[in-house]
Amino acid sequence: MGSLLIKNGTVVTATDKYRADVYVEGETVAIIGAQLEVSADREIDASDCYLFPGGIDAHTHMELPFMGTHASDTFASGTLAGLHGGTTTIIDFAIQTQGESLEAAIREWHKKADGHAVGDYAFHCAVTDFNDSTRQELVHVINEHGINSFKVFMAYKGALMVDDRQMYELMQALVSLGGIVTAHTENGDMIDSNIQKNLQAGNTAPKYHVLSRPALCEAEAAGRAIDIAYQTGCAFYIVHTTCEETLARVRAAMSRNQKVHVETCIQYLLLDDSYYFKAGFEGAKVVMSPPLRKKKDQDALWAAINQNLVQHVATDHCPFCMDQKAMGKDDFSKIPNGAPGIENRFELLYSEGVGKGRIGLNKFVEMSSTGAAKIFGLFPRKGTIAVGSDADIVIFDPQAKHTISAETHHMNVDYNAYEGWQVRGKTRTTILRGTVAIDNGEALVGEGFGKYLKRPPFNPLH
Amino acid sequence: MGSLLIKNGTVVTATDKYRADVYVEGETVAIIGAQLEVSADREIDASDCYLFPGGIDAHTHMELPFMGTHASDTFASGTLAGLHGGTTTIIDFAIQTQGESLEAAIREWHKKADGHAVGDYAFHCAVTDFNDSTRQELVHVINEHGINSFKVFMAYKGALMVDDRQMYELMQALVSLGGIVTAHTENGDMIDSNIQKNLQAGNTAPKYHVLSRPALCEAEAAGRAIDIAYQTGCAFYIVHTTCEETLARVRAAMSRNQKVHVETCIQYLLLDDSYYFKAGFEGAKVVMSPPLRKKKDQDALWAAINQNLVQHVATDHCPFCMDQKAMGKDDFSKIPNGAPGIENRFELLYSEGVGKGRIGLNKFVEMSSTGAAKIFGLFPRKGTIAVGSDADIVIFDPQAKHTISAETHHMNVDYNAYEGWQVRGKTRTTILRGTVAIDNGEALVGEGFGKYLKRPPFNPLH
Amino acid sequence: MGSLLIKNGTVVTATDKYRADVYVEGETVAIIGAQLEVSADREIDASDCYLFPGGIDAHTHMELPFMGTHASDTFASGTLAGLHGGTTTIIDFAIQTQGESLEAAIREWHKKADGHAVGDYAFHCAVTDFNDSTRQELVHVINEHGINSFKVFMAYKGALMVDDRQMYELMQALVSLGGIVTAHTENGDMIDSNIQKNLQAGNTAPKYHVLSRPALCEAEAAGRAIDIAYQTGCAFYIVHTTCEETLARVRAAMSRNQKVHVETCIQYLLLDDSYYFKAGFEGAKVVMSPPLRKKKDQDALWAAINQNLVQHVATDHCPFCMDQKAMGKDDFSKIPNGAPGIENRFELLYSEGVGKGRIGLNKFVEMSSTGAAKIFGLFPRKGTIAVGSDADIVIFDPQAKHTISAETHHMNVDYNAYEGWQVRGKTRTTILRGTVAIDNGEALVGEGFGKYLKRPPFNPLH
Amino acid sequence: MGSLLIKNGTVVTATDKYRADVYVEGETVAIIGAQLEVSADREIDASDCYLFPGGIDAHTHMELPFMGTHASDTFASGTLAGLHGGTTTIIDFAIQTQGESLEAAIREWHKKADGHAVGDYAFHCAVTDFNDSTRQELVHVINEHGINSFKVFMAYKGALMVDDRQMYELMQALVSLGGIVTAHTENGDMIDSNIQKNLQAGNTAPKYHVLSRPALCEAEAAGRAIDIAYQTGCAFYIVHTTCEETLARVRAAMSRNQKVHVETCIQYLLLDDSYYFKAGFEGAKVVMSPPLRKKKDQDALWAAINQNLVQHVATDHCPFCMDQKAMGKDDFSKIPNGAPGIENRFELLYSEGVGKGRIGLNKFVEMSSTGAAKIFGLFPRKGTIAVGSDADIVIFDPQAKHTISAETHHMNVDYNAYEGWQVRGKTRTTILRGTVAIDNGEALVGEGFGKYLKRPPFNPLH
Repeated sequence: MGSLLIKNGTVVTATDKYRADVYVEGETVAIIGAQLEVSADREIDASDCYLFPGGIDAHTHMELPFMGTHASDTFASGTLAGLHGGTTTIIDFAIQTQGESLEAAIREWHKKADGHAVGDYAFHCAVTDFNDSTRQELVHVINEHGINSFKVFMAYKGALMVDDRQMYELMQALVSLGGIVTAHTENGDMIDSNIQKNLQAGNTAPKYHVLSRPALCEAEAAGRAIDIAYQTGCAFYIVHTTCEETLARVRAAMSRNQKVHVETCIQYLLLDDSYYFKAGFEGAKVVMSPPLRKKKDQDALWAAINQNLVQHVATDHCPFCMDQKAMGKDDFSKIPNGAPGIENRFELLYSEGVGKGRIGLNKFVEMSSTGAAKIFGLFPRKGTIAVGSDADIVIFDPQAKHTISAETHHMNVDYNAYEGWQVRGKTRTTILRGTVAIDNGEALVGEGFGKYLKRPPFNPLH
Repeated sequence: MGSLLIKNGTVVTATDKYRADVYVEGETVAIIGAQLEVSADREIDASDCYLFPGGIDAHTHMELPFMGTHASDTFASGTLAGLHGGTTTIIDFAIQTQGESLEAAIREWHKKADGHAVGDYAFHCAVTDFNDSTRQELVHVINEHGINSFKVFMAYKGALMVDDRQMYELMQALVSLGGIVTAHTENGDMIDSNIQKNLQAGNTAPKYHVLSRPALCEAEAAGRAIDIAYQTGCAFYIVHTTCEETLARVRAAMSRNQKVHVETCIQYLLLDDSYYFKAGFEGAKVVMSPPLRKKKDQDALWAAINQNLVQHVATDHCPFCMDQKAMGKDDFSKIPNGAPGIENRFELLYSEGVGKGRIGLNKFVEMSSTGAAKIFGLFPRKGTIAVGSDADIVIFDPQAKHTISAETHHMNVDYNAYEGWQVRGKTRTTILRGTVAIDNGEALVGEGFGKYLKRPPFNPLH
Repeated sequence: MGSLLIKNGTVVTATDKYRADVYVEGETVAIIGAQLEVSADREIDASDCYLFPGGIDAHTHMELPFMGTHASDTFASGTLAGLHGGTTTIIDFAIQTQGESLEAAIREWHKKADGHAVGDYAFHCAVTDFNDSTRQELVHVINEHGINSFKVFMAYKGALMVDDRQMYELMQALVSLGGIVTAHTENGDMIDSNIQKNLQAGNTAPKYHVLSRPALCEAEAAGRAIDIAYQTGCAFYIVHTTCEETLARVRAAMSRNQKVHVETCIQYLLLDDSYYFKAGFEGAKVVMSPPLRKKKDQDALWAAINQNLVQHVATDHCPFCMDQKAMGKDDFSKIPNGAPGIENRFELLYSEGVGKGRIGLNKFVEMSSTGAAKIFGLFPRKGTIAVGSDADIVIFDPQAKHTISAETHHMNVDYNAYEGWQVRGKTRTTILRGTVAIDNGEALVGEGFGKYLKRPPFNPLH
Repeated sequence: MGSLLIKNGTVVTATDKYRADVYVEGETVAIIGAQLEVSADREIDASDCYLFPGGIDAHTHMELPFMGTHASDTFASGTLAGLHGGTTTIIDFAIQTQGESLEAAIREWHKKADGHAVGDYAFHCAVTDFNDSTRQELVHVINEHGINSFKVFMAYKGALMVDDRQMYELMQALVSLGGIVTAHTENGDMIDSNIQKNLQAGNTAPKYHVLSRPALCEAEAAGRAIDIAYQTGCAFYIVHTTCEETLARVRAAMSRNQKVHVETCIQYLLLDDSYYFKAGFEGAKVVMSPPLRKKKDQDALWAAINQNLVQHVATDHCPFCMDQKAMGKDDFSKIPNGAPGIENRFELLYSEGVGKGRIGLNKFVEMSSTGAAKIFGLFPRKGTIAVGSDADIVIFDPQAKHTISAETHHMNVDYNAYEGWQVRGKTRTTILRGTVAIDNGEALVGEGFGKYLKRPPFNPLH
């Protein structure tokens, strides 16, 4: 591999910002200093650029089998698109099939990813069927597979949803084993009822997706999971938080000295539910769960980020092409849920966040990378630029402008919800473990370059 | 000054923790790397030690004239004691005398500190009399004196207290100028009434100090200041927060997307109000305002730290010797308010926080140094170990044990509220701007070594 | 029936208190006046006594089949005991068997009550299986059976519990039909898990009942039901609220302009969970769900009554004799849930409430009678002393003292949780629909005297 | 005086509603019954009419000297106008002049009212200068003058405002004496600053009145007063609550088992702040403090009424004619604060409340009469229709329509903020202490008919 010297950049971490040269030896950062006088196999000038830790997206679904089809990005295409946009590591979900083992799911996801992923990857384990047998597997999953985070779905009854007892007992089991529970918090019962009611009334258009999933359904489930977590003492993380109502539940829990981890996604910060009301089938592009919310919710989420209440901005990347979306042409409930995002998240968060004065540079790094790395045990290997850490470095030109388009993006999907958005700030070069993976839009690594990342048990004082 | 190489230590910042050598050139950090092969004028081996950013104590009162006497530590003795304990920078308060100018206060405080302080120092400006003339001074104070933080007292009527209008107008003025308001939040009216009532009833013992200052008085004032800050849009910071009730006001404000900065002090985390009820005059040792609270408040404060609600753990260092305290032998209200702490804060927070599993290492650094540096604009000069930053580095031996005692401490005061406490973890060497200031308990720098630190206007996205 | 003149008493309603004579003609109050000069078939002197509206207990379970046995009071014995203690009307629960119709349940309960009850009675309908067929029955139940209140259980999975979808759809259905949903709010899943865990650990004593049912389980379910009610716009009433945590959910809902109706029971105001920790099998006497709580919860409930947050104090009367309780000798989960109370509620609430200065006289009447009458549509027939209302009048001697004992009570159960309690204030005479039913402890009416009460659709502006 | 029989009406109290005849002997109600067969000196047929307890307006300012002029209604004209509209009793404010005694104020107000008022009246005592001397007067004021309610102003610094210490000490003094504190809750300091700032900027139009008095200023002061009341244990009542933000403070206090009494005024339920933005000087008509708020605040207030959080709907009647208002033509701060309302409150609350389905009939009576009577100790003399109570009865035709207009109203003021409003429901006859005072718009009693009402010490269990 050799060595690499990145000169004249401005290193930014979740805490720091300083001008320095970064010297990489092999896969890791070896020296950081002012005007280093070392020779390297390769030198890159990063003048006028930021050096950010490689982005981490803790919420993706590559090749997800869902509603009779598969998410259109494979681990190969999806992680490569991520690298183009500055994301070097993902955490995808190995999802248990009800009636089968966690082991089987993890094996299946390894089959999809191993030898294919271009970027690095780890897995959360999604528990959809918690029983005595599943309980037995936890130790092995944590200690052997290096997976410390277990997701439950509070929606999608009959397919993915667990009941409160399963969630409660999973949390109890994980307290001593060193696991954290993450949850999709929507009240599946209420939503299923709304969907059926709408369909019976002949309400089939995409807008009925959002009309079937009110914010209160999300907040209720979030509050319930927070209560159950409190009762057990288990660490808890809400995935893809969308709204003020859910934040209110998190805040209320603080009064009893509870700590809740919160993730939101880039789309909830930037898009709103008016999208569902566009003419024709346009709304299908943002059919995802939970759905997009109101402007006031965007404000609340940005504020929550600055209040240190949110730890991560992910994507829930789960793209489906328009012909897949078309499965729900006559029935919104058959539109595959999900949208692309992995390639745009990092740059959009910079452009709309830092660029528009909503967040600072360190907060940008924390949200795009460090926060997730710490919670999920990737830190300090990932999530920072520091001596000894993996040299996952994004050389970012804050002045470069570009326009988002499905024509030019690298995700394997034929639309982009941000089509035409002007973005200021661009990933010029992406370095993964010391190797230049992307340079000026050209991919220099290929299928199988990505490595699987084992993670240690959860540490509440990360 | 030359160069300095610290070898084999473990660098810890508010984000990172990694094994590295640190090379200092002149006053600042030049290179950080694994096994650096550079030669330096001096080399220190830091094996088995942490390298922490020098502690910052954003709340001290050296030589404070108060209640007819002066705090017993001068800038010389106080900052030197701080260096012994790992604190390299303080922010003291230049307190306006009612009827006089801010300028006069700043001039006076410079007279006390300049040429005397051993550690580095900055000033907050305490505004006790806000009027048209004071308003005119703000620009100069911020831009010329480099002071961006303005403290108001909501207690001590007739001496220091401002009314709501003054606080409101000060906040309004500072929004555009780039200032942050900090406040001592206690309802002075209620407390004055309680004190008078107790004295009239012949209740003169130290315990009546705490009995005159209930938590609700603090919380009420905090809530009021938060409301006023919200109305103005001004950045706001509560100094020495002590209790659950005050935290409740901070949390409530989050629902309207407000961000409030919170400081607590080491004594509120570790001591409780039973101290006031000790036999004889013992309680006088912890007569400070606000007073110590309950165990439940300690729990709430530790939780709030982990909820990212608290940004700094300071001291409110303001020592008075027992013969000074004796002024209030027959009248608790005449006991000079304040206690020593600057030397012990850093090590106690480590020992009781990190050592007892209440907080992580990065949080320790954030609370003891980085948080205050960021809010008050000392960052990145202070508050981190990074290329280009001042080489303010504490070489900390986490295994070394010692016992706190007034016999051995360096603060100029004849008691210590933590007398006899066993502490695990000790400042072995304190480096200030590249110079070894303290080594194994020996002071290598002296009066006047400290520098005054100008700070830029407040940046909400620090 | 003739006429009846009650002279010299002090009439107390939920609003009023005044000295007057009350003239009853047939079953209803005809005239109220100062020193009435009318002749009546019978005259009673009520000097020094209060005339209270007959007590209403909106939560009883006569002859309830539960856990393989039946509550030991029949409609005959239970309502007669109620009359002895000043309660003239009950609302019992006709409980649907899962898989069967509401109609069947109502028919069954009529069979138990009709021709047997001594006091008047109405039914709530407990919906344990809500489906399309049940939905069809609602109109009939409301309009023909005169039942406007529908209870759901959020606990007892597999027997009584409905899931969120059923509750949600029931609420939606009732909004337009004029029904109110009442709920037993405990998270059945969490509790079932706790019970099983305790039993597996060999924890079989009565105290494990309370240890399996923490307050948070109640509060979570309450919050969830309140959320679902809010989403639907349906009127909602929490039965047997026990704790501060649940009240917190009710209070939080007020901020979004929601109104939640709250019932507590006399035992939650007066007894606490130390009872479960008594020696031997004593704790079984108070095995009921939810369980007794802490002293702080009693304080919170009394406060909530005075804050106008609670509308009714009921009993959840559901007695089992000690030989029935003994079914759970070796397994707390087999102890039939429930305890007697109908005879003591009214006098205890007076004695402990009014007598000890916790509530006023009007509040006593509101809690014991009027509140429930208004919510459940018994008003103005029941729940007041007013011209045209049923002459259900308790002549109450506020000075008379007595001691509660299973030896002397009229409930068909061989223990009393208040055994030995001294009560000040006693029902001297109970008049039901103009007939003296109880006089000085003697029953003057018998089986079958009670009438079934149809109730109109729910009126939110009762 | 003789006797009076009102036949065929429907009596409505805060609890009851029933058809009955009401027989009045002298000044009080003697008999209520179905088809009474008594002969009376006078008989009135009230078929199709409600019989409401005479309205009580607990917040009026007759002849108030304010801002250099006097409110345009005298006790004579104002109480007569009240009688026309169904209000039979007022509680006005005897306002201490700073530097003078409470006694002097009470004497002065008696001079204005005694022998002049047409309706009955009581006084609150407004304490504007609480000191040792004032403290001495309290016992006398309560026991001799029969005044149990003491108002403080948290605004109008230099004229009426007390500081926190005065409020705190007043509350402490009243706990044992049996007094209740009522407060005008606006942060005077903030508002004074806003006013001055606006005037300096040349913002002189009426709309700057509302722009100078944001809701947060009201809420802050309310929260502060609630905190202080909590600390003392004193009963507390917020006058003229206008907004959701203030209600939030009341609700928050409930969690610590505190009870706060809340008054709003009819204008805050019906008018909103768009009035201030009308062309020309129109906005001056509703220049009052606190100002009108938003539609959302109206919703919140109506909801709070149904949540049993509000006890009284008053007027803050304080009219100024347009030539008086014109004093502030060029300076909004010189517009006399206040507006007429006493004549319209009762009918508007019926029409807009009951008529539009926002509140029920009993709630209407509670808000217009009973609630205030109970809190302020007028009950049971006033506030109900019951045997022994004063025969203050409004015979109200719910079908009669009329249009509000300054042309036809009886208040001594030349405009009406509700000009042109259609009202359904009208006071046909007003009976005060058994005497027909108003009949079909004709006044049958005159100056001096009103009586002063002494009130007993405050009873928290009213």
